Amino acid sequence: METITTAELLEHWQGHRRLTRRIIEAFPEDKLFTFSIGGMRTFGEISNELLLMGAPPAHGFANPGEWISFKEMETGDLNIEPKTKEDVLTLWDWSTDQINKYWKDVTPERMREEETLYGQYEGMMWWHLFYLIDNEVHHRGQGYVYLRALGVEPPFFWER
Amino acid sequence: METITTAELLEHWQGHRRLTRRIIEAFPEDKLFTFSIGGMRTFGEISNELLLMGAPPAHGFANPGEWISFKEMETGDLNIEPKTKEDVLTLWDWSTDQINKYWKDVTPERMREEETLYGQYEGMMWWHLFYLIDNEVHHRGQGYVYLRALGVEPPFFWER
Repeated sequence: METITTAELLEHWQGHRRLTRRIIEAFPEDKLFTFSIGGMRTFGEISNELLLMGAPPAHGFANPGEWISFKEMETGDLNIEPKTKEDVLTLWDWSTDQINKYWKDVTPERMREEETLYGQYEGMMWWHLFYLIDNEVHHRGQGYVYLRALGVEPPFFWER
Repeated sequence: METITTAELLEHWQGHRRLTRRIIEAFPEDKLFTFSIGGMRTFGEISNELLLMGAPPAHGFANPGEWISFKEMETGDLNIEPKTKEDVLTLWDWSTDQINKYWKDVTPERMREEETLYGQYEGMMWWHLFYLIDNEVHHRGQGYVYLRALGVEPPFFWER
C-alpha cells in the first residue's frame, strides 16, 4: 500500500508553499531585497531560489529526464528574475498553478524512479521532492528570524 | 505500491537529526543557551523542544494511542531537561537509538492511521512524522542564522 499518496504529497508541498508566500508578504517592501543578518542572502534572493525550485522541477516530475529552467518555460510577460515583492508573488502564484498542472501526470511509481536532477543531484523522485520542500522550510526558518529582527510578527508555522 | 518505504522515512528523519546534531555541536558552549535574535528562543531551548519531538513520539508511532513524555520513559540517569551542550548531545544520541528501536514496529499501514497526538494534533501518522521533521528543519534554519550572526560557518544543509 501507499504510505503517502501523490495527492497528499502535492498538498504537503503546496501547503508549505502557501506558508512561504505569507512570509514573503509579511516582509516590509523595502526590506525584502535589502535586509540580511550575518552576511546571508536577503529573503528576496532566497525567494527567487525557491521559485527556481518550484515550477521548473515540477515540469521534470511530469516529464522524466527533462530538467529545464524558467527560460525554457512559457513564462510570457512574467519577470523570472523578480526584484520587487509584487514580481515575486506574481511568479509565485503562476508557479503554484504550474505545479498543480504538472502534478496531474505524476504517478505513485514515479516517486520511486531514480534520476539525476540538473546533472548533479542523484536519488529517487520522492527524495528530490523532499529536498525541494526541506530546502524551502530551511530557508523560510531564516526568513522568520529576519522578520523577528525587523520587529514583524511572522505567521504561525503550523498554518498551511 | 509504496511511494516511500518506512525504512526510507526513518532514514530521512535520522538524516535530518544528524544534521541538527552537527548544528548543536557547532554552537560555542557559552552561546547555546544564551544567544538569540529578535527575542526568539536560544538554540539550546529549541534543541530541548526538538528532543521532546523525538523519542517520545517515536514511542507513539510504535504504540498506537500511547503519547507519552520523557518522564514516562526509562531515561535512567539522563538529564531530560538539558542545560549544557553535553547534556543535549547525550540525550540526542540516546533518542537516536530509541527512535531506531521503536521504528522496528512501524508498518506501512501505520502511516495511514489517524491519531490525535498529545490530545490536540489530528492527522495521519505520515503527516505527524513530517510535522516533526518540518518543525526541526524550520527551527534548525533559525540555528543557521544564529551561527552566521556569531561568525560561525555552519555545516552544509545537504550533508545528512
